[in-house]
Amino acid sequence: MLSVTILGNNSAVPAFDRHPTSQVITLDGLNFLVDCGEGTQIQMMKYKIRRSKISHIFISHLHGDHYYGLVGLINTFGLLNHQQDLHVYGPSPLQEIIELQLKVASTTLPFQIYFHTISKNGILADDPKFEVSCFRTNHRIECYGFSFSEKKKPRRIDVEKVKAAGIPASFYKRLEEGLDYTTKDDKLIKNEEVTTETPKGKTYIFCADTKYDESLVPFLRNADMIYHETTYLDNLKEKAEERFHATSKQAATMAKKAKVKKLLIGHFSSKYSELHEFEKEAREIFENTEIACEGVSYKV
Amino acid sequence: MLSVTILGNNSAVPAFDRHPTSQVITLDGLNFLVDCGEGTQIQMMKYKIRRSKISHIFISHLHGDHYYGLVGLINTFGLLNHQQDLHVYGPSPLQEIIELQLKVASTTLPFQIYFHTISKNGILADDPKFEVSCFRTNHRIECYGFSFSEKKKPRRIDVEKVKAAGIPASFYKRLEEGLDYTTKDDKLIKNEEVTTETPKGKTYIFCADTKYDESLVPFLRNADMIYHETTYLDNLKEKAEERFHATSKQAATMAKKAKVKKLLIGHFSSKYSELHEFEKEAREIFENTEIACEGVSYKV
Repeated sequence: MLSVTILGNNSAVPAFDRHPTSQVITLDGLNFLVDCGEGTQIQMMKYKIRRSKISHIFISHLHGDHYYGLVGLINTFGLLNHQQDLHVYGPSPLQEIIELQLKVASTTLPFQIYFHTISKNGILADDPKFEVSCFRTNHRIECYGFSFSEKKKPRRIDVEKVKAAGIPASFYKRLEEGLDYTTKDDKLIKNEEVTTETPKGKTYIFCADTKYDESLVPFLRNADMIYHETTYLDNLKEKAEERFHATSKQAATMAKKAKVKKLLIGHFSSKYSELHEFEKEAREIFENTEIACEGVSYKV
Repeated sequence: MLSVTILGNNSAVPAFDRHPTSQVITLDGLNFLVDCGEGTQIQMMKYKIRRSKISHIFISHLHGDHYYGLVGLINTFGLLNHQQDLHVYGPSPLQEIIELQLKVASTTLPFQIYFHTISKNGILADDPKFEVSCFRTNHRIECYGFSFSEKKKPRRIDVEKVKAAGIPASFYKRLEEGLDYTTKDDKLIKNEEVTTETPKGKTYIFCADTKYDESLVPFLRNADMIYHETTYLDNLKEKAEERFHATSKQAATMAKKAKVKKLLIGHFSSKYSELHEFEKEAREIFENTEIACEGVSYKV
């Protein structure tokens, strides 16, 4: 099960009870945090996110609305006696900024932080259950999007059939991988007679801050769900271009070109008190679009 | 008119909708910010503090719950095109931490920030209307309390009487300072015949994070109002001592010994969901005690 819970859907200046960027990706009981704007820890309390489950934090770039809440969250983890290792991914000098602040407060954390500096596209975390990779977006400063993929699960063994066919337990692992079995008396048992297919793993992509850039389409292609920023409505596309941000229609065009299944939009400018126009404009181009609402979990 | 508005009254971990330390001191239309925990800019919006009026920010120490919101606030000032100079006071390396974060985001601010590193007791700002001074408290890391004093206003001239006495306008300034006037025909006009006394300026003292320490009494003496931390109730005084914090009764004892007029208490540990016990314990020693409530303005 892959899902995303939105903690902040606004751009730089908090407004209209909307908060700076942060989301929690939940994958088989693990929680990954993507970006951590100021106040993220308060949003987590509000929406009952289990802080203790967070093992990985991914920071897209070092504009404050994407990471000013990180040092406070780490500090709170320490005060709450969090024990689990914490992996933090982000561009340089994120590690220096966080460590400087922990050092001046003489903070000793009860857990280990591993900083992973991102400097190019590639795989960040590879686990039997999931893979996280990153790709550079087109923003004013170095900025990365993140792709979260569930790995396909092993084929499901039909225990009764396997026993009836006399296949030994030592071969189960290979059955899960899709291999056929040949009995001692040379009878072929086809894999699909004793196992069933499991569903393909899902993919969610957080496309971070970026201007409209079609060279990013290959990174988004065929994803089950993407989050694309829409700082402005279509009538401000020149402003969007100039500030390395995207519009409602541009996000929808990317979703369409990349043939994704669903589009979430967010990172709204604080000039907008109402958001329905964003959804309306995007749906003219890509129907399966939704506003990323704070506190809401979207199943991928 | 001197007053203080509480934006955050909790200690390190935000809890029960209480926020980390921040308060706004208002003095004759000027706003000074004291401490700036994470989320202070959101609290300012909630309580309709005019951000554009903030000219001076004083940071007591570099534990995160007292300054993690500062860089975000400065950033927001920039995005909102704040023009006024901003003076920021705090211990080293506050300037380095803030400047590093602004630099990595390639932030250009539309106003000038002047950092003033605090490293000893003394006067920080001296203005015809007010004076701000600092004093070191007894905390785990270098930490300062701040005293805000209105200066006594000039004596008030009774225009009719002054004209009747034939005192020239060129002497008005000296009348305001309290001098007598002698006419050309050698008649003495006593100052109090043509002017009236103005009220003494008030003093508010933010005593910052500190353990109970009677050597601080002289810095608090006779203040109109002080804010003293009470992280714990009396039954946890050993814990308070160990962590360089104070209890309800210790804060009240300081207020009593310093003969202040009123005591505000705050910086409550997140272990307490209810606060009335703090007030009850403190009032047993110093009657004129109030819980510092978020969003409330206290007239000094």
